[in-house]
This record gives sequence, C-alpha cells and structure tokens, in this order.
Amino acid sequence: MVQEKLRVAIVGSTGYGGVELIRLLQAHPHVEITSVISSSSAGVPISEGFPHLTHIIERNLDGVEPADIAAVADVVFTATPSGVSAKLVPQLLAAGLKVVDLSGDFRLKDGSVYEAWYKHPAPDSEWLAKAVYGLSEVFGSEVTGQSFISNPGCYPTATLLGLIPALSAGWIDPKTLIIDAKSGVSGAGRGTSLTTHYAEINENFKAYKVNKHQHIPEIEQVLSQVSGAPVTVTFTTHLVPMTRGIMSTMYASLLGTYTEDDLIELYRQYYEGRRFVRIRDKGVWPATKEVSGSNYCDIGFSVDARTNRVTFISVIDNVVKGAAGQAIQNLNLMMGWEESLGLTFTPVYP
Amino acid sequence: MVQEKLRVAIVGSTGYGGVELIRLLQAHPHVEITSVISSSSAGVPISEGFPHLTHIIERNLDGVEPADIAAVADVVFTATPSGVSAKLVPQLLAAGLKVVDLSGDFRLKDGSVYEAWYKHPAPDSEWLAKAVYGLSEVFGSEVTGQSFISNPGCYPTATLLGLIPALSAGWIDPKTLIIDAKSGVSGAGRGTSLTTHYAEINENFKAYKVNKHQHIPEIEQVLSQVSGAPVTVTFTTHLVPMTRGIMSTMYASLLGTYTEDDLIELYRQYYEGRRFVRIRDKGVWPATKEVSGSNYCDIGFSVDARTNRVTFISVIDNVVKGAAGQAIQNLNLMMGWEESLGLTFTPVYP
Amino acid sequence: MVQEKLRVAIVGSTGYGGVELIRLLQAHPHVEITSVISSSSAGVPISEGFPHLTHIIERNLDGVEPADIAAVADVVFTATPSGVSAKLVPQLLAAGLKVVDLSGDFRLKDGSVYEAWYKHPAPDSEWLAKAVYGLSEVFGSEVTGQSFISNPGCYPTATLLGLIPALSAGWIDPKTLIIDAKSGVSGAGRGTSLTTHYAEINENFKAYKVNKHQHIPEIEQVLSQVSGAPVTVTFTTHLVPMTRGIMSTMYASLLGTYTEDDLIELYRQYYEGRRFVRIRDKGVWPATKEVSGSNYCDIGFSVDARTNRVTFISVIDNVVKGAAGQAIQNLNLMMGWEESLGLTFTPVYP
Amino acid sequence: MVQEKLRVAIVGSTGYGGVELIRLLQAHPHVEITSVISSSSAGVPISEGFPHLTHIIERNLDGVEPADIAAVADVVFTATPSGVSAKLVPQLLAAGLKVVDLSGDFRLKDGSVYEAWYKHPAPDSEWLAKAVYGLSEVFGSEVTGQSFISNPGCYPTATLLGLIPALSAGWIDPKTLIIDAKSGVSGAGRGTSLTTHYAEINENFKAYKVNKHQHIPEIEQVLSQVSGAPVTVTFTTHLVPMTRGIMSTMYASLLGTYTEDDLIELYRQYYEGRRFVRIRDKGVWPATKEVSGSNYCDIGFSVDARTNRVTFISVIDNVVKGAAGQAIQNLNLMMGWEESLGLTFTPVYP
Repeated sequence: MVQEKLRVAIVGSTGYGGVELIRLLQAHPHVEITSVISSSSAGVPISEGFPHLTHIIERNLDGVEPADIAAVADVVFTATPSGVSAKLVPQLLAAGLKVVDLSGDFRLKDGSVYEAWYKHPAPDSEWLAKAVYGLSEVFGSEVTGQSFISNPGCYPTATLLGLIPALSAGWIDPKTLIIDAKSGVSGAGRGTSLTTHYAEINENFKAYKVNKHQHIPEIEQVLSQVSGAPVTVTFTTHLVPMTRGIMSTMYASLLGTYTEDDLIELYRQYYEGRRFVRIRDKGVWPATKEVSGSNYCDIGFSVDARTNRVTFISVIDNVVKGAAGQAIQNLNLMMGWEESLGLTFTPVYP
Repeated sequence: MVQEKLRVAIVGSTGYGGVELIRLLQAHPHVEITSVISSSSAGVPISEGFPHLTHIIERNLDGVEPADIAAVADVVFTATPSGVSAKLVPQLLAAGLKVVDLSGDFRLKDGSVYEAWYKHPAPDSEWLAKAVYGLSEVFGSEVTGQSFISNPGCYPTATLLGLIPALSAGWIDPKTLIIDAKSGVSGAGRGTSLTTHYAEINENFKAYKVNKHQHIPEIEQVLSQVSGAPVTVTFTTHLVPMTRGIMSTMYASLLGTYTEDDLIELYRQYYEGRRFVRIRDKGVWPATKEVSGSNYCDIGFSVDARTNRVTFISVIDNVVKGAAGQAIQNLNLMMGWEESLGLTFTPVYP
Repeated sequence: MVQEKLRVAIVGSTGYGGVELIRLLQAHPHVEITSVISSSSAGVPISEGFPHLTHIIERNLDGVEPADIAAVADVVFTATPSGVSAKLVPQLLAAGLKVVDLSGDFRLKDGSVYEAWYKHPAPDSEWLAKAVYGLSEVFGSEVTGQSFISNPGCYPTATLLGLIPALSAGWIDPKTLIIDAKSGVSGAGRGTSLTTHYAEINENFKAYKVNKHQHIPEIEQVLSQVSGAPVTVTFTTHLVPMTRGIMSTMYASLLGTYTEDDLIELYRQYYEGRRFVRIRDKGVWPATKEVSGSNYCDIGFSVDARTNRVTFISVIDNVVKGAAGQAIQNLNLMMGWEESLGLTFTPVYP
Repeated sequence: MVQEKLRVAIVGSTGYGGVELIRLLQAHPHVEITSVISSSSAGVPISEGFPHLTHIIERNLDGVEPADIAAVADVVFTATPSGVSAKLVPQLLAAGLKVVDLSGDFRLKDGSVYEAWYKHPAPDSEWLAKAVYGLSEVFGSEVTGQSFISNPGCYPTATLLGLIPALSAGWIDPKTLIIDAKSGVSGAGRGTSLTTHYAEINENFKAYKVNKHQHIPEIEQVLSQVSGAPVTVTFTTHLVPMTRGIMSTMYASLLGTYTEDDLIELYRQYYEGRRFVRIRDKGVWPATKEVSGSNYCDIGFSVDARTNRVTFISVIDNVVKGAAGQAIQNLNLMMGWEESLGLTFTPVYP
C-alpha cells in the first residue's frame, strides 16, 4: 500500500529556519508541503525572494489564517519570531492542527522566567504545560503521539546533548558549569541590522549578550530537571564569521577520577541507537564543518588531570539540528516514524 | 522486483571530487559503493581524514589495483589528477569496468593539443577517440549505453552551457567571445600550497593562469564543434575567497537584434526537459550560492543595446555540476536511468 | 617654522568613507580634524558607533551646518550619499570652504546624463562646471590650487588608471572595451539591507547592476576625453565575499603588435614619478590583498597573441585609493603639498 | 640635531611576523631596516614572495650569518620558529647585537618545562635567565636598557593583560581560571598544511591542542609570579575562520562582591598612562576587528551575580600586539624611547 502523504504547512517560510524546512521536507518521503506562509510577503512567489528554489517549489506565499491552514494541512511548523508564536500557536492547535513550534515561546515552563528573559508576555500557562520539549535524543519517547512540540533552541541543543550524559551520571559538579558558545551568523536570522552587516562581521569575532542570552533559562531548566536540583550556568555567546554552525565548549569539574575513555564509553552507551549523535574518538574534537548541512551533533572530550576538569566540545549545524532538522526529527517521532526519516543527509564537505 | 544495486568504486576518494562522489552516491537509490580507493592512504579508514563521514561510510581505503576493483565493482569513477588517469583508465577498461573519468586526460580529442596545455604526455589516441565527452545537457544522448565517459571540466561546464544555445543558433559572433571566469578555492583541490593557504586567499581576489588555463582548449574544442568552424576565446580565471562555486561571465557581440526576452525564450527551448538548467527571468542574474550543493546550472542575460553586446552569466557548484554531480548524471545516462536520479538536492541556502 | 595645521571637517563621518578619512587624516602631519559630522547622529560620541576609535578621536558628532563648519574648518570632505552633496556642497563653497566631494554628484559634466543614471536631479550646471575631477595620476596638475574637487568613484579609479595609458597611446581599439569589475562589500556602504547581510554574501559571488551601474557614464566621459572621441563600454559589476578591494579586469583589441614588455614599458613611463601606481612584472598579476589598506593601484597585463587582445588587471583598495586615500591625495595636490603626504602606508598583509 | 637612525635586521622576514615587522618598522621614525633575512630564500628579492612590498622595500633577502648581521645592524628581531631561536640568539648576542626574540624559546624560565611542552631541547639555562619577558604594560620597566628581550606569545598577551590586574588585586580565585581562546589563522604561520588550507578552514570553527597548547606554561608562569603561588589554568584554543585577531574569553570566581564598575575602575587605574590598553565601558565588549592592524589590547567585563563569576573578554591583533607590534614596543622601551613610537596606528575598520 502506498503511504498517503502527510500534508504540511510552514509558517515563517521566508526566514532561514523556514527555508531550511522547505529544503529538508522536499526530500522527506512521507510528507507533502501544501502551504508556505509568510505574514509579510503573502501573494509573492517564494522563488522570488529565494531564487535557489526556482522550479523546486513554485508556489506563492500564503497569509497566516489558521482556518485556511487547517483546510490544507495536517501539521504546521511555526518558524516565527518569539512573541508571534505565543499568540498564533494556540489558534492553530484550536483549529485541529498538530504543531511543531521553532520559536522560543513554549520552551520555558515558568511564564515569569520567560518574561524576565524574553521581555514580553508569556503564553498562557495551560499552553506552556501542554508543550512537549522535543530534545529528540533525550526526551524523544515523550514526543511520540503528541500533537504540540516545542523545538529546542540552537544553543541549548548543542549544549544539552553535550552535558546531559555526564550530568545525569553524576560525574560532573553542576555548580561548576561554564559554557562558552559560538555561532555562525545565520542564527541571527534574515532580518537586516548592523549586527548582520557583512563588513561588520567578516574578519571579526565578537561576544554578545554575555550572561544575558535568552537560551540560558532553557539550558538551566533542562539541566535542573536532569540533575534533580537547580542548576545555574555561566554562559557566553560569540558570533563567528561564518554562516552555519554552532560550537559549545563546556567546562566542568569532575566529581571523581574519570578518563577520556570513560567519558567516551558513557556517551556512546547513552546515545546508543541514536543515529544523529556521534562521539569522537580519544584525542579528536569535532569541528562545525563536519556536521554542516546535516542533522548530526558531534561530541568530543578533553580531561585535564592537572585541574581535574573536563572540557566538552559539541557541534551542530544551527539551521539543521538546531532548528529545521530537529523539528522534522520531532515530526517523525510524533508520527511514530523512524526518527531519521528524510534526514540522512551526509554533511556537505568542504 | 527489487532493483539490484550497481556496484561502484571511487578512485581518488581523498580528494574533494571523490569525497563529494561519496556524499552524492550515498543518497543514490540504485547504487552501492563497494570500494573507496586512494593510492596514498590505502589501509586507513576514510573517516579518519574525513570525520564528517563517521558512521556514514565506515570503510578502509583500498589501493589502486584494477583486478581487485573489477572483482567488486561494475563502474569506477576516477577522480584522479591529470596524468594519473591517462595511465589508469585504459587498465580499468581492459579489466571490463565501465569508467567515468573526472580528470582532464580524455577530454581533448587531439593529443598534441593536450600536451601543449597539460605539459605531459597524452593518452593513446585510441582511448581519446573512445571517450565520450559527457556534457549531459548537450551530448547526453551520446552517453546512453556507453562504457567510457570523460566528464567535463568545471569551467567548461559553466561556460559551455552558457554559450552553446546562442552560438548554435548563430546569434553571437564566435570571433568576439570573452570569458571572465571566477572560482571558489575547492577547485584547486585538497593539496597544500601557498596558493590555497587561508591567510593568502581570505579577503583577497586574484587572477591566475590568465590566457593559460588548460580548460581553454576544452572550451574551444566544443564551441568549434558546435559552430562548425574554429573558435578561439579570451579566457581569464580568478580565485574567489569562498569554497564552492563558479561564475562564468561571458561577452559576445550579437549578430542581429535580439532582446533579453528572445534569449530567455531561446535558452528555455534549448534546455526544455533538462531539469538541471534553470534560465532566470529578465533583469535577474544568478548568484553562486543559489546553486550551492546542487547539480543546477543557472543562467541569466543582459543585452546592452548601446554596444549590441550580450553578457551571459552562468553559475554552478564546481564540486557538483562541475565534477561529482555531472559524473553521476552521466552514470544515470549510461545506465539508461532518469538523468536526475539521486541528484534532486535542493541547494543549501544560506 | 612649525607648519600650521590645516583644519579639516568630515561630513558623513559615520559611513565607511568618512571613518576611513578619520583613520588616514589622524596620521597626516599637516592636518587637524576639527569636526566630524553626521546628520543622523549629531551629539553622539563617534567612538560609540565605532569603538575602534576609542581614545583616538574622542569627539561628539556635529550636525551639518555650513556656517558652523566654516567657523572651525578650512577644508571639508563630503563623504555623503549622492543627492545629498548636490545640495550641500554649494552651500559649503558659498561659506568659503574648500571642498573635496566623495559623492558622485559632481563627476559628470552633463547634468542630463547624471539624471539618466542617478535617477534624481543634477546639481546646477555652474557647479558641475567648476568641479575639478581629481583622478590624481592623470589630472593632478589641474587640481593644484583649486578649491572644489570631485573625487573619482571607486570602479572608475581602478578602471581608468588601467586603461588610459594604452588608450591615449592609441594602442587599443576604443570600440572593443569590455570591463569586468569586482568589488568587496564595503563599497555598498554601511546601510543595512538584504544585499549586505552576511549570510547572503558569504560563500556567494554575484553580479549586480549589469550594464546599469552609475559609474559607467563616469568611465565613458573620461575615456572619451582621453581618446578624443565618444567611447562606449560594456561594464559588469560583481560583489565578492570580502570587505575591501576592487579588481577591474579589462579587455581590448590591440591596434598593432604589442607585447607585454611593450605595455609594461609604456605604463611605467606614463606613471613615472607617481608613487601610488605600481606596474607588475611580466607574467605576474596583482591581487587585491596586495594593496589592502593602502593608496596603491597595481596593474598587470596579459597579451593573447591568438586573439590579439590584451587583458588589463588593475586593483585598488576601494576605501582608500577608491575613496578616502585619493581624496587626501587631492587635498595634498590642492594645497601644493607632496601628493603622498600622510599616505605612505604599507599595505596590510596578510 | 637629527636623530641618527637605529639599524635593524629582521630574521624570519618571509613569515607573517617578519613581514609585519617590516610594515611597522617602515613607519618608525627612528629606525632603518638594514637587512631582511631568511634562511630559506636568501638572494631573492623580498617583493617576489610579497608583492605588496614592491617599491616599498626593494631589497634581496640575506642569509643568516651573525657576523654579517652585526656588521650592518644594531638590533635584531628574530621571528623564527621555536627551536631555531634557541641556537641562533646566543650567537647574535655574542656578536654584540641586541635581540628581541619573537619565538617561544626564551619565555619559560625552567628548561624542563620548556622541553615538556615544546618537545625539543631548551636553550642553556644562562640564556633563559638573561632573557627579559617583555609584556610591555606589566614588565615594561624591566625592559628599559636591556639588550635581550623575549617577546610574549600571542595568546599569553591577550590573556595576561586581561587577568593580571584582577589577580594581582586578589579579586579572583586563581584556582578557578578557565580560558577559552580563539585565534585567526595567521597565528599558524605561513607554512602550508591541511590545517591552513582555505577549504578546510573557511566556514569552519574548530578546537585544537585542547589542554595541550605550549602557551599554557607561559601563562601559568606569569600568573604564578603575579599571584605569588602556583597557578594552573584550563586553556582551550580554537581556530576562527578569519586571518587576524585573538579573543581570550576568561572565567573566574570572584573572591568578594565586585561590580563591573569596580572592575572597570581597577583596570583603568592599573593601565593608566598605557596607551595600548583600552578598557571598555560597562555593558560593552570588544570585538577583534576593533583592534585589527593596531597595537591595542581592548578589555571588557561581565559579572554574573547569580554565580559570582566574572567573564573577562580581551582582544588583540595577534600579528601586531601579539607579535610584531609588541616587539617594537619592547624596542622602544629598550632604547628609552616613548613606548608608542611608530605604533600609533588607528585600527583598520572595516
């Protein structure tokens, strides 16, 4: 019997997350894109703003009307700015749609924490409670059969996948966590501002939002849940003169004598059967280009016996595993499909 | 009935062309890679030098032994330096293998021209005669059923696809052809030298091999064939501080009064049914990123009524359409498969 | 006797041209910056938007008031958008100031041509007549003692310095001129738009304004003047993923049998004593990085005996020789100083 | 009276450190370059390998002969690989020359530590004892009048200037120091290898030598000296896809309640009168481009009250303040000149 295709709509199709969803979903065997949606550009062919899609998806952008979407789609990806999803997603759910939300609006369970970091009103608490946090390799089993998934942030994905096995094993001291994160510029979105101007970014390396990034409470919420006690982290974000890629370099004090071999074994067991996490061999650390264009998260370790600290290095493609790829992984889990369906891309190298 | 997989080997698997063949063939539905071959690194896991292939292709590199290859493969891609293929390919053919050669060794029909530009001995003329030049959209019908294909060069692919429809229609004066070509650095291969050193290339734009590039006779041979008379071109190559992509900006005097609309119609008709050539609308020109990671060749036009000249702009991803992608397109044509099989990637953007 | 410092003001100090004027004038021995001016940011310390100037120039931005400027300055550089200078410069001149204008508003002698290409009203023809076109190495002698200089555009500077000696010698056919030009992104200015967004530019090479760039009439005006007859050129502009640098690759048919040695000698004689033009040796072509951060224009040649065409390659730093550096060179000439005063920077390499 | 020029020779003139010494010394008012030296390229014009120096320094490279050098120079800069200086510098000193050594060979006072990290024999201990460690803003007073200076490493310069004021004030816990450092590719030198290949570096961010970099003992030696007790640090180095620039992001636990204002005041007092260290205002952090091409070290702070940790961010241009610029600063101090002589370049921006 031929699999009937799942009908999918993408809100925010003119952002980098949305356009990457299109790229990946075009290659997904069980999915059909039935609407690409943009509040700002409705009526315009999507290939006008994105000529790389010429002949691949010849479709005009639709407006954001929940009823219209429900008429043509089963599932919606909302790749919308924070604040927009807060209002839109409940309408989509009410219209009977399944939703994978890529904004940060439904990740924090405590609305007051959301408001403290995001600086605008949180969604109603009932919706915060309903959203399942879709960090696939950790909470994937909770995603199956659900209809409302909150897709993790890009920095949290790299950071949490790098820390959780050691933290949940009790090998590292949660009071000593320092996270030095670096991202390519696509993470800032397609909006124009001086901070994304080529001449300001090229040949430049800069820190931003030091100790102030809105992904901090998301990381702390999950680490606290995993360790069973409140965790507070020191977290710095930097902008790298490249388009794609995140590296999270993480530091912690060891709570025992563990070697790199121990860590490698622990992580390989933790992620056994999870295709998209790859643990590097001893003495080798991953680079962002080694996962570029793919859904992989690669992790390596260094133990410094002199200080009894461990350094974790975790890399992802922020647009794929940090956004569109993990969102599709969540779709697969929601639908009870193999989690890697449509995502088995080899990284693009060089 | 299940399609039995074609067994494929790749010689030169540690170069950028070879590693891209692996990426693309991994996703090809009718193909199985049975040997990855490197004369210099035999015995080493390929993922050691290319960690992005970890878990994707866990295989040691094999040495270059035609008999061994023939024992495990039906078809060989030779992504080897010029000079190496000249000797190796006849042995592979003699061993009963089909060959798609990505080097420049079998593109020029006249061995003396080869020797003048490549500065080393040409293959025997019988092999030069047997090789079918696989510029898919132009000579694809000659490829079907063949067992020995010479894959076009990267600059010639972009340039020829951009010029042939107008030249064969007699719209442009073949004595006025000027080609100003630009390439990303991956075109120089993975070998190390000062000319590929990051600090020498980054924030730099340079010309090289001006009027001396070995792709000149390849372009002239095909244009002469198409126009029915000897064609000589002025051809400049430049290095762009980016990894992938070629743009060929081409100039010619018009032999009549043709508008951009005329050219667009001519080209759309010429390439009708050929999925991988996309003709841009009037007033819009393609950029290299719009084909990055894909097998597309995108073409745009500008007619200057003041000088009665036309400017053609043609872009490809040099590693895909300019090498590995077109080689697989040729494989598809050789085997009588749909030419786009396994190649329907959406460009990676941004 | 101590040289009394010339008092200088810079209008447009928050653009890339303005901020480069500050960098260069800080090191000029005979000049004192007395006002940095920005219509949009008056009252703000300039180091707020440009932290690299911290402690170097601690001064608030002033507003644009001709009388106020005349009270503190002898000379004004107007690094303002086209259209703004058209109105402002006459007021500055009327206030008794000397002016070096870096906009395109006073370069074209024919106002109707200006309006056809710039798409807004031209300045009054009396001002167009008064402006001296400051292409230093060609028209420098006309600049001495003048009080109103129109500084050449970036593309015209690279192109004209590359073509004029051969054209004025009658060695090349003016009907065959094709100019393929490439620029770094700083040429687009500091304004934000999708066309300067890092993720759209990085790893991308694109053509723009093909046959439509407003520098075309400027180039044609000067070439016509030099050759004594109307010259029309084919001119393409491309954007290179780098910050600084312009290369102009130019093609022409030779009107005789001239070798590369002939051209080298011709150009070395033409530019004898002009420090900022360097002619490369035979078989070597300049790269943009070799002039980065400096006021040099480097030129190389290739003659193709097969087509009897010559290829000229000319490079500049668009922000220095193409803007701020040549403006200061013009100041030096206006004042009767040595033209290289304050400009003898070694290029920054790598 | 006219200042007689100091005669200076540069060993290692074909490396990035050497060629930057040439750029900077060309602009130094009291210095004359009398010999540019390269063991590998003696006899060749330096402008052949570095065309940007055409007409600026027209001189053939000399060989490495201490007696010949002593005949023409008063001071030598040795920008040589580690291991080479160990042998050469004693001969130069014995020949009566003053030496500023840019290699790492004379920075560590304990030869056994040197051998453990550098993996080859240390210089004789008498020379290690004689070398004065020239971190200008901290140990500048010890440099005056000396004849043998060991110039600090690039990572140590950024890191030590960022940490010393807080550490020497007793504000931070030396047991908690974590240093996450990032460098542009020029730091790897001009040698060719896969690790500097453009296509491997571009669009890539990678960690290297994690906890193994040879600058670790240099940093620890100075921090231990400053704090009066042994200090051990966790230190990670990363490669950024850019040519110039280092950022050191440093973490420490505060030993009291200090605000960002406190830190700013402490640092401004510590570095009062030292032109090349600039302390950023509250809430603003420096970026590498803001010091590019200049001798500045810019420093900013973030205090996280939640964890009572401070984050220090320090940036330099690795080729200037991290090598050639600081070497000239040391020359100035040795000679009793103003430390900024010839170094008052405005950073090149953008």
